[in-house]
Amino acid sequence: MTQHRPNGIITLLTDFGCKDPFVGVMKGVILARFREATIVDLTHAIDAQDIAQGSFWLEKSFGWFPPGTVHVAVVDPAVGTPRAAVVVTAGGHCFVGPDNGLLAPAVDTAGAGTVHEIDTFRMGLSRPCDTFHGRDVFAPVGALLASGHAEPSSVGPLRPGLVESPLPRVQRTLTGVLGSVVAIDHFGNLITNLDETLLKIGRAVDVCIMGKSLPLRRTFADAERGEWLALVGSFGTVELAVREGHAASVLGVRPGTPVELMMSRSASSMPPP
Amino acid sequence: MTQHRPNGIITLLTDFGCKDPFVGVMKGVILARFREATIVDLTHAIDAQDIAQGSFWLEKSFGWFPPGTVHVAVVDPAVGTPRAAVVVTAGGHCFVGPDNGLLAPAVDTAGAGTVHEIDTFRMGLSRPCDTFHGRDVFAPVGALLASGHAEPSSVGPLRPGLVESPLPRVQRTLTGVLGSVVAIDHFGNLITNLDETLLKIGRAVDVCIMGKSLPLRRTFADAERGEWLALVGSFGTVELAVREGHAASVLGVRPGTPVELMMSRSASSMPPP
Amino acid sequence: MTQHRPNGIITLLTDFGCKDPFVGVMKGVILARFREATIVDLTHAIDAQDIAQGSFWLEKSFGWFPPGTVHVAVVDPAVGTPRAAVVVTAGGHCFVGPDNGLLAPAVDTAGAGTVHEIDTFRMGLSRPCDTFHGRDVFAPVGALLASGHAEPSSVGPLRPGLVESPLPRVQRTLTGVLGSVVAIDHFGNLITNLDETLLKIGRAVDVCIMGKSLPLRRTFADAERGEWLALVGSFGTVELAVREGHAASVLGVRPGTPVELMMSRSASSMPPP
Repeated sequence: MTQHRPNGIITLLTDFGCKDPFVGVMKGVILARFREATIVDLTHAIDAQDIAQGSFWLEKSFGWFPPGTVHVAVVDPAVGTPRAAVVVTAGGHCFVGPDNGLLAPAVDTAGAGTVHEIDTFRMGLSRPCDTFHGRDVFAPVGALLASGHAEPSSVGPLRPGLVESPLPRVQRTLTGVLGSVVAIDHFGNLITNLDETLLKIGRAVDVCIMGKSLPLRRTFADAERGEWLALVGSFGTVELAVREGHAASVLGVRPGTPVELMMSRSASSMPPP
Repeated sequence: MTQHRPNGIITLLTDFGCKDPFVGVMKGVILARFREATIVDLTHAIDAQDIAQGSFWLEKSFGWFPPGTVHVAVVDPAVGTPRAAVVVTAGGHCFVGPDNGLLAPAVDTAGAGTVHEIDTFRMGLSRPCDTFHGRDVFAPVGALLASGHAEPSSVGPLRPGLVESPLPRVQRTLTGVLGSVVAIDHFGNLITNLDETLLKIGRAVDVCIMGKSLPLRRTFADAERGEWLALVGSFGTVELAVREGHAASVLGVRPGTPVELMMSRSASSMPPP
Repeated sequence: MTQHRPNGIITLLTDFGCKDPFVGVMKGVILARFREATIVDLTHAIDAQDIAQGSFWLEKSFGWFPPGTVHVAVVDPAVGTPRAAVVVTAGGHCFVGPDNGLLAPAVDTAGAGTVHEIDTFRMGLSRPCDTFHGRDVFAPVGALLASGHAEPSSVGPLRPGLVESPLPRVQRTLTGVLGSVVAIDHFGNLITNLDETLLKIGRAVDVCIMGKSLPLRRTFADAERGEWLALVGSFGTVELAVREGHAASVLGVRPGTPVELMMSRSASSMPPP
């Protein structure tokens, strides 16, 4: 069982955007309970209710924070229904959010998570409003955990595990491996779930999307201005881009679009991913 | 008279956006005067110069912060003209901003405010630039108040009260009560100024906007995907939404659009709001 | 030679946007090395790869922070190529970023900079990924400098100077001085590189853009709603605006568009800028 030694840092990842004071109010709730909290925004621009995308970015981000950090993540289309609210400790990190798949990939990577369901009554929280558990459940519980005023094991009953992420799994095909676009970044680059470790299995030749075939390059500077390329992005997955252009708007791609990593024949010996 | 005991937290609410370093520079000014400040962004995406919207969100947000917080709010179309810059203490909170209605609803809710006009000369501030009092007046005064280096009563002369908010008032009609859309949130939901307490007066039947009649539901999950609904939002006012859709762009609604809460006949006994 | 006495504040200016967790991850890297850092976002909405715009805003912003601040700036189209990564101390401030012109105007203003190239091996950093030196080089070096665990002079070899900013220089014309639009602010106002000191040289008459001639005013309130005006903006340069309108979208202007400050004849005696 993982021990949680809080370091006072709380990260926030939501699909709330920054237009309204939703996130600001969550920070007020945190500071009202833990004045010394250091609060960091991971992102609040997860596509609305896109649990898969949220789970992808949380998994890619949490490990850059020191152990003892509390990660509060809220992409919660089923808020107000009986879906569970949970606290998970894994690999020295602590995750707080709805049990809808959002936390699962990060917990898998952190390793050997222990899951507890949040009992709002036991935690002394007033009845949460039906539409904003970020403020009424996850922020106050995150503050109590980060300040050390609550133990992860004290928030409520133990649960056997977590709901899996809706993130599509990479699949073996006759010609390579098939993944999909998970997110479109600020520059319009297409972030896929094709992990760079797949490149070590066989000899990757090209990356295909919507009938288009792109060469794998090392860095943006290896392509001409306006040229398409695929490269391993900074979070270790294959990205598709147009140098100094906005790939997503050129192709009209959205999250979920299939992307195939074409392998040369030697790849036929690779194990199913 | 309310005493202000600063807790070192400063919130910021503006219509400056996050594209330019305006807000970052305000934080530099604050930290240069009060190194230990904890600064929280409420929002910087108030629609440009929409004082009503800013006053609405400030009123809904401030109470989630602990007493002793200083709230700096700047939506200031008349910057550079002789409109007053004020500091108000109310309910243990401290508000700093232009006296144009922006602070009035929050102060009304906090209760029994004391208003002082900021005298920049007395405060030792250099002559403010004509277009950015957020940086040259409100940020430094907020820092001095939050650090305890200035008392609210020392910033300048006492004033009898505040300019009222331009937020439209809810009105009684033959069939119910008439309010309006105040803000469109990140999800495209239409936030109105129809307070949930109105629902306790009569039996609310439907909510009407632009000739469309929507049923009142408890939570988003009570509607089908793509279905219209009205519900009490997380800040206690009626919201209009399309489940998993973007209501504002479907209807082409902007802040200011009238919304009527239709009441059954028993509502005829309700007092005027 | 300037001495750097860190005050624990780190500012961030990038073109990474706030859609993805890039900036959040940089903050994790900073906090993992310097738990007590105070991190302030200047802006992350510099137009993608617009070094000139980034260099403009950095120069306008850094001076509002107290001496001892570390400014990490990353607009880095050549990331992954052999362009140098540098640390510059100037005027008590410390600047960290790629040597591509981004830091030059701020260092010029701060005065008498000392430039050192970052040697990632000497700094104990693992091999940076080819696309995200913000996370792998600039954030950790910024943290080490802000915490006092590294001296600017210890990060690597001394360099003679910095690459110049691509910011276009203001030029003398027969009729006045010619500059350009550098940035479009959140309100759609056109920010130029025409410094207010130019106005003191001759008698400025009008400001011309795309064949349009605008009067110079003191403040927005001096124009009618919907009227065009030019004024000295809050950062000391000429701005073009439509009162309560969005100038950039009306004219279809982008950064780089020429703007001429027309001078009366007495201006003919002014020195070349």
